[in-house]
Amino acid sequence: MKKLFAEFFGTFWLVFGGCGSAIFAAGIPELGIGFMGVALAFGLTVLTMAYAVGHISGGHFNPAVSLGLWAGGKFESKDIFGYIVAQVIGAIAAAGVLYLIVSGKSGFESVGGFAANGYGDLSPDGYSMLSAIVAEVVLTAFFLLVILGSTNVRAPKGFGPLAIGLALTLIHLISIPITNTSVNPARSLSQALFADGAYLSQVWLFWVAPIAGAVLGGIIHKALFEKD
Amino acid sequence: MKKLFAEFFGTFWLVFGGCGSAIFAAGIPELGIGFMGVALAFGLTVLTMAYAVGHISGGHFNPAVSLGLWAGGKFESKDIFGYIVAQVIGAIAAAGVLYLIVSGKSGFESVGGFAANGYGDLSPDGYSMLSAIVAEVVLTAFFLLVILGSTNVRAPKGFGPLAIGLALTLIHLISIPITNTSVNPARSLSQALFADGAYLSQVWLFWVAPIAGAVLGGIIHKALFEKD
Amino acid sequence: MKKLFAEFFGTFWLVFGGCGSAIFAAGIPELGIGFMGVALAFGLTVLTMAYAVGHISGGHFNPAVSLGLWAGGKFESKDIFGYIVAQVIGAIAAAGVLYLIVSGKSGFESVGGFAANGYGDLSPDGYSMLSAIVAEVVLTAFFLLVILGSTNVRAPKGFGPLAIGLALTLIHLISIPITNTSVNPARSLSQALFADGAYLSQVWLFWVAPIAGAVLGGIIHKALFEKD
Amino acid sequence: MKKLFAEFFGTFWLVFGGCGSAIFAAGIPELGIGFMGVALAFGLTVLTMAYAVGHISGGHFNPAVSLGLWAGGKFESKDIFGYIVAQVIGAIAAAGVLYLIVSGKSGFESVGGFAANGYGDLSPDGYSMLSAIVAEVVLTAFFLLVILGSTNVRAPKGFGPLAIGLALTLIHLISIPITNTSVNPARSLSQALFADGAYLSQVWLFWVAPIAGAVLGGIIHKALFEKD
Repeated sequence: MKKLFAEFFGTFWLVFGGCGSAIFAAGIPELGIGFMGVALAFGLTVLTMAYAVGHISGGHFNPAVSLGLWAGGKFESKDIFGYIVAQVIGAIAAAGVLYLIVSGKSGFESVGGFAANGYGDLSPDGYSMLSAIVAEVVLTAFFLLVILGSTNVRAPKGFGPLAIGLALTLIHLISIPITNTSVNPARSLSQALFADGAYLSQVWLFWVAPIAGAVLGGIIHKALFEKD
Repeated sequence: MKKLFAEFFGTFWLVFGGCGSAIFAAGIPELGIGFMGVALAFGLTVLTMAYAVGHISGGHFNPAVSLGLWAGGKFESKDIFGYIVAQVIGAIAAAGVLYLIVSGKSGFESVGGFAANGYGDLSPDGYSMLSAIVAEVVLTAFFLLVILGSTNVRAPKGFGPLAIGLALTLIHLISIPITNTSVNPARSLSQALFADGAYLSQVWLFWVAPIAGAVLGGIIHKALFEKD
Repeated sequence: MKKLFAEFFGTFWLVFGGCGSAIFAAGIPELGIGFMGVALAFGLTVLTMAYAVGHISGGHFNPAVSLGLWAGGKFESKDIFGYIVAQVIGAIAAAGVLYLIVSGKSGFESVGGFAANGYGDLSPDGYSMLSAIVAEVVLTAFFLLVILGSTNVRAPKGFGPLAIGLALTLIHLISIPITNTSVNPARSLSQALFADGAYLSQVWLFWVAPIAGAVLGGIIHKALFEKD
Repeated sequence: MKKLFAEFFGTFWLVFGGCGSAIFAAGIPELGIGFMGVALAFGLTVLTMAYAVGHISGGHFNPAVSLGLWAGGKFESKDIFGYIVAQVIGAIAAAGVLYLIVSGKSGFESVGGFAANGYGDLSPDGYSMLSAIVAEVVLTAFFLLVILGSTNVRAPKGFGPLAIGLALTLIHLISIPITNTSVNPARSLSQALFADGAYLSQVWLFWVAPIAGAVLGGIIHKALFEKD
């Protein structure tokens, strides 16, 4: 249970911090934090909670990461279901609290996109479904390469959460305009549930592509970098 | 006394650097650092002084943190009063020096909001009192989860100040538009004392909500993550 | 082979992340990440992959770095050719995937400059060939000083990838307006191959100057800082 | 001599990177890095070179730091003169190379302020001489508190360059609008020598105030935090 609480709070923080920074602070005229601030925020949610509870649960906060680590031989299949449930509940709880806060804004009418992910008409900068799939697969595969590599016994001790959190920042610096950046199915589902728009009809892609990429990353790491 | 001097200088630096960056540099046209620069500045005040004097006092620099650590079983009740007094004096001293500097600006007439915290009419982007309470409670609770988790004996050694400082950056990336971000009663009081506007009448919220959140975070950590 | 795969994936990530952030996210109106976001992205590609696979290949991801390490006495001449081939293939593969993604953007007509490097008419802010040479030589020389110094046995353990990645961020903060920042011949070649414009005719400079600078840095380090 | 070369290259890098980012990249319309990018660049020059050559010379790169460390009992008086000479030469050499590069820009007519420091009419945002003195003294004093504290034997090992570099970033986030941020007499002198304007007549303040602040910081650290 301790592990599941860690995953719940970690994924809550990822959605509350990452999506929250996008919803509250990205678009303020002149002073807003823009895509760069959102990218930093997403990365720092993982960096901070991975240092805080990574020694308890491993600090996945993301169903694709749990499955990628399983594919890479670093996570047991019996734990997958519980982790994913805790992550999804944490993400949805965070989205609910974000909704509560934003609805208290003067003149509030709608949450709009609510930092949900999309492609085609719902892509922030108009990228196709194919572009979205390629980007999400490649980015999640590399996310797993960084996770598996930086937590390897031969990597410098203690720097894993730093490298992993900043990898998530980097991923957002690249791809917010393409899909609003998922690489995390829990984060995509939670926002699509509350967003105004057809985001829920596209959420399948943000489960399939990140998980496919993560499993690919896990297999690549195991096949190429773990053999001696 | 050594500990109290450390808390005095640390909280001085937090207010001087965090609020100072907001007052001097955030709103410069074209080149200004915006909310993102202010968020980074707040986090770096804690990161830098926690590395510098954290081994002396623990590096709280914040009455809510002292109380949250007490709730989490990591700080003795006999030290609480002295720490909070040192923090408040440090914060007010920093605000005074900021006032001195800004009043030397060509054409100076008023300090304006002076980076004070507010809700409702005094919220930077018009958020209600309820939104402000929810945001401050949740953010301070997670701040304590990061502090208590990243300084746990099982967490990687030496990375605590990095994780804690960057958690404060993240907290500001999310919530400057909501309340101008407190999570720190000393910082709220010092700015409200000098600001032009009704900020002092709202300062109660920025003592109550951060302290409630911090105590909640301390209790959650103790109940969920410390039991074996 | 394990080392060459590490260099392939590392250089892929450098080009995909660094140039990708420039292509997709730098110029979005209001919210775009600008040169600062691109600088951060380039640095984080190296930081993240150096933590992930640095213990396998050394984490060069750059022909100039391989040659500079050789000049500094830290890399064997028999490995140079294989490393550079893996790096160039990785860079070109990444540019190809970037092309695939960007061509799926609504209304796509041309990749434009595609984050390629240039001087004179192709310099982002109109700098001469001489300025470009001086900048690339100096910056790559210091890049090698940081790499060789921070991975020295007397430097703090484990911080090398942090210092090296952030050195690349710094280098981009200085010089994107001058040459779009190379300091990496593989990254210059891959983008010039796909870019619209005469970039390929200028790519010689971005092999000659970074390699000259890197070798200079390697020699300076060996001559001044390794003798006892 | 090895130490003096380390200080020469470190201070060269500080001026080349910090002032270079300001000169080349800060003010580019839409995409420029602004004061935030310059703040990050200054900090990263110190972070990167302190990891690279800090184990050789201590990594001062700043006459005020050398004098503050002496006041704090961590640097021998017999080394002060050589260090300051190496730092000043390094700074001037970097300014010369910056001049060479910027003069190769299309349509170049003047270097303008050349990132020099100033107060009153030469303050970026119109701050008085008194404001400038107070800011430079306070900021350099805290810079020394961070340097002396984070390199103390009881502080976490290896994190000193990180804390010190990011302290310089923080200092710039606060004070670029006030004085263009000195806290470093070598950096002030080198830019004033080349700048268009009366900067050289103001350079005395940027020797006096940072050195006074640094010595104050050294004394405070020794008096309050080193006694047992």
